[in-house]
Amino acid sequence: MRWEQLDQQPCSLARTLSVVGDRWTLLVLRESFMGIRRFDEFERRLGVTRHVLADRLKKLVEAGVLDKVAYQQRPLREDYRLTSKGRDLYPAVLALVNWGDRHMSDAQGAPIRHVHSRCGQQMHGVLVCSECGETLAPHDVALEEAPAFKGQLLPVHWQAKQAGEGS
Amino acid sequence: MRWEQLDQQPCSLARTLSVVGDRWTLLVLRESFMGIRRFDEFERRLGVTRHVLADRLKKLVEAGVLDKVAYQQRPLREDYRLTSKGRDLYPAVLALVNWGDRHMSDAQGAPIRHVHSRCGQQMHGVLVCSECGETLAPHDVALEEAPAFKGQLLPVHWQAKQAGEGS
Repeated sequence: MRWEQLDQQPCSLARTLSVVGDRWTLLVLRESFMGIRRFDEFERRLGVTRHVLADRLKKLVEAGVLDKVAYQQRPLREDYRLTSKGRDLYPAVLALVNWGDRHMSDAQGAPIRHVHSRCGQQMHGVLVCSECGETLAPHDVALEEAPAFKGQLLPVHWQAKQAGEGS
Repeated sequence: MRWEQLDQQPCSLARTLSVVGDRWTLLVLRESFMGIRRFDEFERRLGVTRHVLADRLKKLVEAGVLDKVAYQQRPLREDYRLTSKGRDLYPAVLALVNWGDRHMSDAQGAPIRHVHSRCGQQMHGVLVCSECGETLAPHDVALEEAPAFKGQLLPVHWQAKQAGEGS
């Protein structure tokens, strides 16, 4: 499989990575979630070359994750703002950040703390089931292929489970 | 900033990406969460070269995300199993998958469905506050620099907010 074919794979993770799988891209998004919008600010904060930054921003606009918005007409000045599709990446970004907070921090601890303004507490994100609200653990989540992909995507031991459930 | 320096940045996302920021790496982890353990299975399912796969598995073992475990002595055969540090990546992986389900699916819909075995419902993950349990939205989460990093990490408008809160 080549990276150029990633978005054609019947796998939501592969398709997601075809958009955000580049590391600079996720750092650009981190800045967006901090409220950074202007090219020069991204550049200064990330220490990335203008060429790489322009490329990543362009791809995020093409993917519908960022919007390029004119905030001044003469001279024309544009900035980059998260779309609702982009804002939907927040759980993934926060989950990655929280993992780093927990497992990659040095003696100084997590560099940035997250405070939930609704409850006022320092917190981290917890992933729960959209239906019952319970905390999700990998062994509590069963995988099922959509009808169009029956028998094609899951490892053999999952196939057996699916067949077993039907009998 | 160079990628080799990523894990030294005072940013939990950058540090996380120094471990999982490679796209093959996240696909390897997807397979791990599906229960894949053996080199040949990873290779067959991912369609990746043995060289690249060996490199990514080695790095994940070095990072403490996977454990290399002997499952047979003569001849020695080893497989790769998620550590608890690795299992802690589940929320991030599921959040990325769910974003792809929602925003990158074609007419056939999400290729794989997730069923929560505790409640029996088809579901997706929702990120909630560890303290109050409410669903998290980016605008409800305030950022604060840890004392060691005061004035160094957040954009100016966040600095102002922090100063304003103290006054």
